[in-house]
Amino acid sequence: MENMTAKTVLIVYAHQSAGSFNAAVKNAAVDELKKQGCRVLVSDLYEMKFKATATEDDINGAVKNPKHFRYGNETMLAWQEGRLASDIVDEHNKLKEADLVIFQFPMYWFSVPAIMKGWMDRVLTLGFAYTLEKRYSEGIFRNKKAMLSFTTGSHETMFSSNGINGDMNVTLWPIQVLAPQIFWAPTHLSSEAREGLLKGWCTRLQGLLNEAPLTFPPADIFDEGKGFQLKPEVREKQADSPFGLTVGHHLEKPLPPQSQMKAGV
Amino acid sequence: MENMTAKTVLIVYAHQSAGSFNAAVKNAAVDELKKQGCRVLVSDLYEMKFKATATEDDINGAVKNPKHFRYGNETMLAWQEGRLASDIVDEHNKLKEADLVIFQFPMYWFSVPAIMKGWMDRVLTLGFAYTLEKRYSEGIFRNKKAMLSFTTGSHETMFSSNGINGDMNVTLWPIQVLAPQIFWAPTHLSSEAREGLLKGWCTRLQGLLNEAPLTFPPADIFDEGKGFQLKPEVREKQADSPFGLTVGHHLEKPLPPQSQMKAGV
Repeated sequence: MENMTAKTVLIVYAHQSAGSFNAAVKNAAVDELKKQGCRVLVSDLYEMKFKATATEDDINGAVKNPKHFRYGNETMLAWQEGRLASDIVDEHNKLKEADLVIFQFPMYWFSVPAIMKGWMDRVLTLGFAYTLEKRYSEGIFRNKKAMLSFTTGSHETMFSSNGINGDMNVTLWPIQVLAPQIFWAPTHLSSEAREGLLKGWCTRLQGLLNEAPLTFPPADIFDEGKGFQLKPEVREKQADSPFGLTVGHHLEKPLPPQSQMKAGV
Repeated sequence: MENMTAKTVLIVYAHQSAGSFNAAVKNAAVDELKKQGCRVLVSDLYEMKFKATATEDDINGAVKNPKHFRYGNETMLAWQEGRLASDIVDEHNKLKEADLVIFQFPMYWFSVPAIMKGWMDRVLTLGFAYTLEKRYSEGIFRNKKAMLSFTTGSHETMFSSNGINGDMNVTLWPIQVLAPQIFWAPTHLSSEAREGLLKGWCTRLQGLLNEAPLTFPPADIFDEGKGFQLKPEVREKQADSPFGLTVGHHLEKPLPPQSQMKAGV
């Protein structure tokens, strides 16, 4: 069993209020992880007034092509030349050190709040975080882990394949690595019930870095020469399986149940 | 056939550069729609320096619960009392007038850029745009239409259920109404090919408001008394169908092919 001691955990946190349940969940994680000997870094995005939008201001000095500014290419160049905005560099440094990244947020419109989407858009810089060659199982950060921990406004029943919002398993595709920690509609719970959720979260945190990640297909089962399509021999091997490989790689079969929700399914 | 004349179209547009293909697509839409007699409103988010993050600053005057600031509730109250930030009110006014909203953007990390997510988070105010009772087919804006028009960095092959990024049909769940207009990897195309794409887009724009929307289940097939789960009689009726109802409401069956990509499938 891998020891949590001396591991570094980065919590990217997005809630406006220190009195919120999201804050309580974040604080529980900080305390519990420190108790285990982890180093914990927190990026409190609202507190930092984190810039969400991807603009030319993210680059110090002149851009290469002002007539047609392309964010991905320009920031890759700026990263290579040490000309990225300092708030991005700060996050890069935290990310390099982190063994695990936890994204803590209230779900807004079936996704992360804009300020957190801005963290993803700006910090996961082309060249630094991925290249066309280095991604997915070949990714630059393939040895790090990440997970989502979030609250919803809706009850769990509403986010099933039977429920009005549809299957959460589909909603979460393709934004995560470890199984998510979902706090369903905490607003509707008693404070005792919320305390219970926090305890369960602390228990999970004790073994988090040893958890098996969710199932994602390795990059090498796709054929680069053919537009990164699944290799025919892999597809053939899957012929007898009742389910697709993942939610996205469903191969026109039923979705693998819970594959974005639980590891090892 | 519904006439486009005298219809109002709002284009919510997010690209940093007037020299981009996204700008060309937006401009083509403005010109084509005006030619048809439409009134066209454009929210050019980067140009407006649109605030992406959902904060207390979105409310003029005191918030109700400063110890536990809840964005949804506080902005609903502020909307009722006419105390919302003026940039949100401006967008509300455009949205009220619009018969059709087109979101034009380059896809970032399998979703809209943060600045556009910020538009969704801040402008689709609780009370103004939806309530627990008034959403989906019962929604306040149920007679308006919306669509996504976007560019990708990846080729189309990479976004199939066989491709390394997985099925675009799943990625788009649940953020749209009319079928999307997708420009696959325009960076890799010749300018002639890009011109061809713009022409195809203009042709589509001529009939856009008459297009059938994508298939979404009406809200009344879910039972509010049972956590908004699908009514058993509806499920029973679907028993013989080879496919689920939608990507999200898949009923443990294969996904309805292309249901987030093409209307009437």
